[in-house]
Amino acid sequence: MSNPLPSWNDGKTKERILNYVLSVTDPNQAAFVPVKDRIATFDNDGCCWNEKPAYIQLFFSLARLKQMATDDPTLRDKPHFRAAYEGDMGYFAGLDPHAGGDVKQLMQVVFDSHAGMTQAEFEAMVVEFMTTARHPRYNVPFKLMVYQPMVELIHYLRDHDFKVFICSGGGMTFIRSVAEEVYGIPRERVIGSNISFETKMTDGGPVIMRKPGIIEPINDGPGKPINIELHIGRKPILAAGNSDGDLHMLWLAQTGSYPSLSLLIHHDDAEREYAYDTGSEKTLQMAPERGWSVVSMKNDWKTIFAFE
Amino acid sequence: MSNPLPSWNDGKTKERILNYVLSVTDPNQAAFVPVKDRIATFDNDGCCWNEKPAYIQLFFSLARLKQMATDDPTLRDKPHFRAAYEGDMGYFAGLDPHAGGDVKQLMQVVFDSHAGMTQAEFEAMVVEFMTTARHPRYNVPFKLMVYQPMVELIHYLRDHDFKVFICSGGGMTFIRSVAEEVYGIPRERVIGSNISFETKMTDGGPVIMRKPGIIEPINDGPGKPINIELHIGRKPILAAGNSDGDLHMLWLAQTGSYPSLSLLIHHDDAEREYAYDTGSEKTLQMAPERGWSVVSMKNDWKTIFAFE
Repeated sequence: MSNPLPSWNDGKTKERILNYVLSVTDPNQAAFVPVKDRIATFDNDGCCWNEKPAYIQLFFSLARLKQMATDDPTLRDKPHFRAAYEGDMGYFAGLDPHAGGDVKQLMQVVFDSHAGMTQAEFEAMVVEFMTTARHPRYNVPFKLMVYQPMVELIHYLRDHDFKVFICSGGGMTFIRSVAEEVYGIPRERVIGSNISFETKMTDGGPVIMRKPGIIEPINDGPGKPINIELHIGRKPILAAGNSDGDLHMLWLAQTGSYPSLSLLIHHDDAEREYAYDTGSEKTLQMAPERGWSVVSMKNDWKTIFAFE
Repeated sequence: MSNPLPSWNDGKTKERILNYVLSVTDPNQAAFVPVKDRIATFDNDGCCWNEKPAYIQLFFSLARLKQMATDDPTLRDKPHFRAAYEGDMGYFAGLDPHAGGDVKQLMQVVFDSHAGMTQAEFEAMVVEFMTTARHPRYNVPFKLMVYQPMVELIHYLRDHDFKVFICSGGGMTFIRSVAEEVYGIPRERVIGSNISFETKMTDGGPVIMRKPGIIEPINDGPGKPINIELHIGRKPILAAGNSDGDLHMLWLAQTGSYPSLSLLIHHDDAEREYAYDTGSEKTLQMAPERGWSVVSMKNDWKTIFAFE
């Protein structure tokens, strides 16, 4: 391939990625990594798809909370239902970890609106939302809000016999609903946070029901290495993230026995996307100390979205 | 392939398996299943490897409990440490679900002996045990106690682009330590029960520590569909099990939109292995009602172990 990452500008970052992949896949080099150990883990929100002005899953949750509070007025006694019903975005903005909020509290709000139905019913809702609801700034369906350079990187790694996993603090089922279509990543390679499940026995056999509550640990920060162990059982040799919730995962890639590459996506392009460091301060500080590649969206990415 | 399952005797069971696989992999047949949906889930203890006179992991746990109780006499106040120290196998036999015991209590005993160390330390212990400790009846290393017909079936399915997962009530890490070697199944395709984990931050980065406690749900009975959803996100089209703990999984395979095959391994060969129905009564009763194929180890398997 003459230009395997066309949406990346030529420069140090692209060069480092290409050199790394070529070195670990070349059996004649000391850095060579056997196929079974070529594991890559990518955060999702803000790393593979857009997360501003709010998480895509939060837009979905708000629409759902509002609908529920419309159908059942008693729900409006609960602050998050009331805020959704009244369109009070400020309430939800305060829960965003990028604004100092608590990710667990945020996920509880999200999952409260995602319970009391089967997995199949929930997925149909997500697909409908991702296909029809539109981003407030770009006015395209949310499923198009994926970063084209990251999609190219996922495909490039796959072509070099990497197993690429999404490892996101966001909802696992939410992402799986579209991951095959937008990333080419199969469902079993999407790791995320989860609502509780229950196996309900019916006359037609077992059915998976969604229940209020969170499966511990939530897949953020120190939870990421644990869920990587549970779902993969190997350490990544390549990890990508964009926030302090990815710090443990970015470092985990360096604790194995192989050469590794950790990528930190930096949101520094207010013109084409968004510019923000809040919630990523520790990781940005640690990047030069630990040798992580900081990817400048402004300078390293020729294209951000395929629809541009 | 003229004879893809050489350790299976010719007959109805083998014929049904071969016909099923050929029909779902032939694009010209109505039963055709796309590659991405070719998911198979196999129980492990008593389905892919031997579980008598006790679970292999229980032998491992007893050796470990005994060592711990030898090193620290105060541990002998706890019944399971005392029983292991005194070699009281009857105590542990009573916990076996095949003898009316509670699988969760059993796993707690097992996991109590598996905590307080890193994943890497634990795996090294398991590999050592599986390679050196010997089965009391067959006098071979435990890792050779796999059923050759099931190994052939796993390889046959893999050759037909199935993704074959182990889905066991036993410990996930315990099985992963040898699954690639004995089954050719990669680590991320082994689902099991789990001890709790903690991400410990050290100067050298994050390290996964094993902690007392069980991750809910334990991967047995109604827990299997839940963990299949978490780890795979698709229903199996082919499932194999041998006990009432597999009932939900065997039925789950029939709830999808594709033709399915559910196999129930029946331990009816006291001469070459063991004969027992305890703990499998419901499943054996349900098999003819639901059209599950009962595999007679006595009649359907030409060979049981490769070392014979």
